[in-house]
Amino acid sequence: MLSTGEMGALATPRTVAVVGASRDETKLSGKTVAYLRRFGFSGRIIPVSRSAGVVAGIPTVPALTASDGVELAILAVPADHVADQLEMCRTAGVTATVVFAGGFGELGERGAANEAALRGIPGIGVGGMRVVGPNCLGFVHPETGVMATFGSVLDDFEPAPGNAALVTRSGGFGSGVLGAANAAGLGCSWWVSTGNEFDVTLAEMLESLVEQDDVERLLVCSEGLTAGDAFVRAARRAQQLSKPIVMLDTGRSTHGARAAASHTGTAAGQHRVFESIADELGVIRVRSLQSLLDAGRALAAHPHGARAGATIVTVSGGSGVLAADASADAGLALASWDAPWRERLARGLPPLASTANPVDVTATSDSRAFEHAVRTAASHPDTGVIVALLANRRRDEAERVKILTEAQAASDTPIVVSWVGASAGLESQLAAAHVPAFPDPTRAVDAAAVLVTAGALAALGERDDAEAHSHAIDRRRELAAAQALADRSRWVPRADGSLLLTDEASRELLAAYGVTTPHERTVDNAAEALRAAELLGYPVVLKARSTELLHRSAAGLVRTGISNGDELRSAIDALRGLSSGRLGRGGLVVQQQVGAGCELLAGITRDPAFGTVMLIASGGVLTELIDDGMALLPPASPSHAERVAAELRAVRHPLDSSTSAAAIASSAAETLAAISRLAADCRDIVAEADFNPLIVSPDGTGRLIATAVDWVVLGDPAATG
Amino acid sequence: MLSTGEMGALATPRTVAVVGASRDETKLSGKTVAYLRRFGFSGRIIPVSRSAGVVAGIPTVPALTASDGVELAILAVPADHVADQLEMCRTAGVTATVVFAGGFGELGERGAANEAALRGIPGIGVGGMRVVGPNCLGFVHPETGVMATFGSVLDDFEPAPGNAALVTRSGGFGSGVLGAANAAGLGCSWWVSTGNEFDVTLAEMLESLVEQDDVERLLVCSEGLTAGDAFVRAARRAQQLSKPIVMLDTGRSTHGARAAASHTGTAAGQHRVFESIADELGVIRVRSLQSLLDAGRALAAHPHGARAGATIVTVSGGSGVLAADASADAGLALASWDAPWRERLARGLPPLASTANPVDVTATSDSRAFEHAVRTAASHPDTGVIVALLANRRRDEAERVKILTEAQAASDTPIVVSWVGASAGLESQLAAAHVPAFPDPTRAVDAAAVLVTAGALAALGERDDAEAHSHAIDRRRELAAAQALADRSRWVPRADGSLLLTDEASRELLAAYGVTTPHERTVDNAAEALRAAELLGYPVVLKARSTELLHRSAAGLVRTGISNGDELRSAIDALRGLSSGRLGRGGLVVQQQVGAGCELLAGITRDPAFGTVMLIASGGVLTELIDDGMALLPPASPSHAERVAAELRAVRHPLDSSTSAAAIASSAAETLAAISRLAADCRDIVAEADFNPLIVSPDGTGRLIATAVDWVVLGDPAATG
Repeated sequence: MLSTGEMGALATPRTVAVVGASRDETKLSGKTVAYLRRFGFSGRIIPVSRSAGVVAGIPTVPALTASDGVELAILAVPADHVADQLEMCRTAGVTATVVFAGGFGELGERGAANEAALRGIPGIGVGGMRVVGPNCLGFVHPETGVMATFGSVLDDFEPAPGNAALVTRSGGFGSGVLGAANAAGLGCSWWVSTGNEFDVTLAEMLESLVEQDDVERLLVCSEGLTAGDAFVRAARRAQQLSKPIVMLDTGRSTHGARAAASHTGTAAGQHRVFESIADELGVIRVRSLQSLLDAGRALAAHPHGARAGATIVTVSGGSGVLAADASADAGLALASWDAPWRERLARGLPPLASTANPVDVTATSDSRAFEHAVRTAASHPDTGVIVALLANRRRDEAERVKILTEAQAASDTPIVVSWVGASAGLESQLAAAHVPAFPDPTRAVDAAAVLVTAGALAALGERDDAEAHSHAIDRRRELAAAQALADRSRWVPRADGSLLLTDEASRELLAAYGVTTPHERTVDNAAEALRAAELLGYPVVLKARSTELLHRSAAGLVRTGISNGDELRSAIDALRGLSSGRLGRGGLVVQQQVGAGCELLAGITRDPAFGTVMLIASGGVLTELIDDGMALLPPASPSHAERVAAELRAVRHPLDSSTSAAAIASSAAETLAAISRLAADCRDIVAEADFNPLIVSPDGTGRLIATAVDWVVLGDPAATG
Repeated sequence: MLSTGEMGALATPRTVAVVGASRDETKLSGKTVAYLRRFGFSGRIIPVSRSAGVVAGIPTVPALTASDGVELAILAVPADHVADQLEMCRTAGVTATVVFAGGFGELGERGAANEAALRGIPGIGVGGMRVVGPNCLGFVHPETGVMATFGSVLDDFEPAPGNAALVTRSGGFGSGVLGAANAAGLGCSWWVSTGNEFDVTLAEMLESLVEQDDVERLLVCSEGLTAGDAFVRAARRAQQLSKPIVMLDTGRSTHGARAAASHTGTAAGQHRVFESIADELGVIRVRSLQSLLDAGRALAAHPHGARAGATIVTVSGGSGVLAADASADAGLALASWDAPWRERLARGLPPLASTANPVDVTATSDSRAFEHAVRTAASHPDTGVIVALLANRRRDEAERVKILTEAQAASDTPIVVSWVGASAGLESQLAAAHVPAFPDPTRAVDAAAVLVTAGALAALGERDDAEAHSHAIDRRRELAAAQALADRSRWVPRADGSLLLTDEASRELLAAYGVTTPHERTVDNAAEALRAAELLGYPVVLKARSTELLHRSAAGLVRTGISNGDELRSAIDALRGLSSGRLGRGGLVVQQQVGAGCELLAGITRDPAFGTVMLIASGGVLTELIDDGMALLPPASPSHAERVAAELRAVRHPLDSSTSAAAIASSAAETLAAISRLAADCRDIVAEADFNPLIVSPDGTGRLIATAVDWVVLGDPAATG
C-alpha cells in the first residue's frame, strides 16, 4: 500500500515536475503541463527540459535538485532516458513518479536493455521513491487538477465530478473507458492506469485508493492480476468500509491457465481461482465494459446498494417476463408478496393488472396506477430494490419521470428503471434524481443485482469476523505437525525431482488436523495382507503404493470391495503384475473400506497471483467429469467451507438420495476447514496436494463423517531441509 | 401458414375497414384511421361506426356488407363487442381481421364470457376468416402504409425503411421494441404483435413472413411458444432461404417447466427442449433486447452473415483481451494466422505491435498502420469477420471512419466495430456504409458471432438434406413394430392409470429398430436363475421387474456384477425381500452383464409446443448429477445425433480414458438415430420413454457398441386399442 504521504504526493502535491516537457502541445510531451494548467492545478509546476526554454509560460530547468521540493514527477521522456531521469528524481528527493514511456519488459527482448536499466536504479519501491508505470497513461485527480497524463481523452471533455475511482492497467483502453464513463454521466474522482506495474501494482493502487475519502467505489479493468495478497487486503478493506469494487473481469480466457498446470488444475483451473476468491471477498465481477459502467452508474445513485428482494413493476407483460428471466440469470431474487400486500397493491390497479411479482400494471393503465405500484413496492418490507419497466409513452413521459423521482426522494428503496425507446436526455434527467435508467430491461436488472451484491458487502465482512476461530481447535498440535514437514526424511524424492510426502507422514499430518483417515496396514506379502484384512475386517481395499503414479485409482493400483481372502489373494496377484518398475518405490497397503458416500476433492495449489489456495470440488471419478472446483483463501472458516461445499454438484445431487445436501455440506465443513488451516500452515512447504476422494458417509452410528481415503502431498524441494 | 391471399390482405389490401372508428384521434379507437392516412395507405378506408358520422373526412357506415369488398378489417371495439363484429366481418366476406381488445382468455374467469363468444363464431381459422389477436397491437407494413395498430409509438416517429420483420407476442413491449429498433436505426418492413393467438399464432406468422420478398430476416420476441410444428417449418424454410431468425428468448425461467413434469425432465427440462431445437434449426437465440437489436443491425449490414474465423484488430491491448474473452463466451472462434500472413501483417505495423490475433496495432500507431491491419485481415483467407476495436481519438476519427468504410466497400468480409467513447452520430455514419458499430467491445463481438451463425444457416440446411436416409434401414420392419404397439396386450396398466410396455414387447420393439439389448431370461425361482446364469455366462445382472417402481436402479431392484452362483442366490434373497407389494406385477430377470462403458440416456417425451421430442443426456447415475440433456426433433439423422452426443459431458470425459469421445459419439450415433425414428413412428402411442443406461462399451472384438440395458416405455392410454 502507498503511504499517506505517497498518496498525498499524487492527490495534493505542492510541486509537480514534468520531465521532458515540450512547448508543442500537440506532442505527447507537451500535453501534461497544458492539462495541469487547464484543469486548475494550483501548485507549482516545474517543466524540466534541456532545450525547451519556456513551457506554457514557465521557464524550464535542465534538471531537478533537492531544493526544488518536488513531490510528484511526471516523466514524459523516451524509454531509453527513463532510468537516468528516475535516478535524477530519486536524488532530488521526489516522493512519487509517473512514467509514460513504453518499451520495457512488455516488449520482451527488444525492451530488455531499458528494463535492465530500470531495475538497476536503487531505492525504488516501498520505503523509497514510488513509480507508477512505465507504459501507462498515468493518472488524473480532477478535484485538485492533477492531470498526470498525456491521454488525449482530456482534449475531448471536462471530467464529470464523482466519487468513483477508475483503475485500469491498460492505458489506451483505460482512457477509452474514462471517456465512455464520462459520456455515461459517471463521474470519477480518480482515474489511474498502472501499466507495467514495475513498482506500484494495480492491486496496491486499489488498496491505497480504497482508503481515500473521495473514493466511494472502485471500478477496475485488469487483464490478469498480480499481487494477489494486496488485492485480498484491498477487497477486505473495501468490505469493511462498504466501498464496492466492481471489476471488469478480462483475461478470463487465459487467467488461471498457469494454475491449471497443477494436476488438480482441471478442478480449479480456468480462472476459477480468481472467480471464487473474488466472490468470497464480495468483489463484483462483470463481463463487459457496458456492465461496468452500468454498475458504476447504479452505485453512484445508491452508494450503499440495496437489500435483497427485487420487485419488478412493468407496464407490459412481455418486458416483465424478460426481466424475470434476466433476474434468474443475474441471481437477483424476486421479493415475495403475501396476500395482504397483494390486496393492498390491487386496490390501486386496474382489474387486468397482475399483482404477482412482476407486477404488471398493464399498458392501458394510467399514471396513477403506475405510481401506486411503485409507491406500494417502496413501502413493501420484503422489497429491497424496485425495477420499473417502461416503454415509449412519450406523451406522459414527464408525468412518469415525476412519479419516479418523487417516489425515489421519498424512499430508501432504490428504483432502477428500464425505459425502452425513451427520449434523449431522459436517462440523465432520472440520474440526477438518483434513479439510474437504462434502455434495456436486462441492463436494469443487472444493475439492480449489482446494488444487492453491494448491499450485502458489509454483512459479508461482519459474518466472517464473527465466526473466526469460533471452534475449539488444538492449534499447537496442528502447527507442530506442519513444522515437522520440514524434516526431509518425511519426503520421498520422485523421478521428476519433486517430493512426495510418505503415507505415514501424511496420515500423521491429517491426524494432527483432526481429519479422519481409514485404518490401514502396510504389508509385504499375501500372508501379512490376509492377517491385516482379518484385523481390519472385510470388506477391505488393497492399494499398491507408488511414488511415481500419483493417480492410483486411474492407474489401476486400487482394488476396492474385497470381501474375502480369496478375493484379496487374487487382488494381490493382479497388483503385483503391475508393479514392474513404473511404480517407483512402493509396497502394498490394506485399508478399511469406507462405505459409499458423497465424494469430494480437497486440494491445495499455488496460484501465481494469490499464492497458496485451497480447492474444493466434486471428487472421485466426478472431478474431471463435473469440473466444478472452487477456490478458497486459507484458512477458511467452517461456515465458509460449508457454503462452498453446498454449491458442489456432487453435494447437491447425492447419489444416495436419502442424504440431504445440507447434511453433507455441514458434515464436511470441519474437515474442509481443517485442510484449509493445513494449507495455510504449510504454505511454504507444500507445493500442492490432493485429498481425493474425501468421502462423506455414515459411520457405524449413522452419523455422517468425512474421511480422507486417498491423497497426494507434494513438497517444495526448496523448502524442505 | 397464411395463404398468399391472406398475407396479401395484410400487406396490400385494396380496402381496409376500421370497425369502431372514432373521430377523436387521442382515443385508441381514433388512431388507426389517422395512421393509415398519415403513413400513405393508398387503398380505400371504410370507417365503421354507428355514431361517428365522419372520421378523418370519410363518412362512416354502420356495418359492413359483402359489396364493400373489404380484405382487411381492423376491430377497435371493446371486448364484449368483438364476437358480434367478427361475425359481421365474416358475413361480409372479409379475408383477415385484427382485434385489438384485451379481456379474453388472458384474464381467466373474468374474460371467460368474451372468450366463449369468440369461440362460438364459426368459420374462423385456416380456410376461413383469419384473426390476428385479440389483445394485441396489430401490425404495421410501412411500405404500403398499412398501419393496422393503435400503438401510440407511431406518434413519435416515422418508421425507418428496412427488411426486417419484427414479430412480438406482447403488444406493449413490442411497440417499445419497435421504437427502440427505430431509434437504433434498424428498419422494419413488418411489425406484428400476435397477442392471444386465438387464430394466427406467432409461429404461423413467422412461417408466413419468411416467404415475403420484403423480409430478409426475422426478429422475434415471444414468451413461450405454441404451435411448435409451425415454428419448425418456419425455421427450416428460413434455413433454405438463408433468412436468419433471431429470437429474444424470454420466458426461459418457465419455458419447458411443463416438459419437466415428465420423469425424464431433469435431463431435458428447463427450457432445454426449446433451446436444443432452436439450435438444431439454426435459430439465433439472444438474451436481451439490446442483443436482439444489435443482431438486427449487424444482419441489416450483412444479410448473408459471415464465414467463421474472426480477426480482432485493436488499437489497445486491453480491449483486445476483453474482446478475446467475449469471443470465447460467444463461441466465436478466432481465425488462425500462419507465419507468412503474420509477416505480411507485421510489414505495415510498428515494431511494438502484436501480429497474433487479437492484432494489436498499439495506441500510438498512426492511421496507416490501422488501415494496413484491417485491409490485410480483409484479404486473409481464414478470416470470415473482422472486429475492429477503437477508442476516443477524436482528432483522427474522420480518417478512421474513412478507412473502415473504404475497406468495407472493397471487401466481402464484414467489419464490425467497437468504438468506446465515440462522438455522437459516428455509429449511424458507419452503419450507412454497412459497418455496424457499437460502444462496447463485447457487443461488437456478440454481433460478429451472430453474423457467423447466420452465415452457417444455408450450410446447415444443405448438410441435413444431404444425409437424410443415407443409411440402409429396414423401415418396413420398424413401422410394423411401431404399429404393433397399438395392441393393448403389450401394455401393463399401472396403479396411476398409465400403461407400461412389457419387457418382451420393449425388446421386440428395440430389436426391430436394430438397437442391441443384452441377452436375458425371465425366471421364477433360484434354480431357474442359476440355469439362466450358466447359459448366459457370468457375470450377470439380476433385476426385479416392477410395473410400479420405474427407476429400478434407484429403487435397489438391480444387482450388477454377480460373478457366481452363491452371489446370485444371495442377490435373489435380497430382491425377494424387497418385493413386498410395492413392485406391482413383477418377476425376476437374469441378464448378461454389459461391460463398463460410457453411459448415456436416450429418452422420448412430449413437449407442449413441439410434441414428441427425443432427449439425449449423460446417463446412468450421471443423469441428474450432470443434467446436460439436449432435445432433438425426431427423426434425427445419425450425424446430427452424433453431434449432439459429442457435446455430452459423459462422452467428452469418458471414465475409461482409453476410449475417445469421438469414437463413443460415432458408435452411439446409429442407435440414437434408431431411437429417434422409433420416437417419430410411435409419437401417437408412446407418451414417454427412457432408455437408461445406453452403455457404449467394447464388444468381444473390442469394437464399441451401444447397448440398451434398461428402459421404461409408457403408453398413452388414449392411443392404445
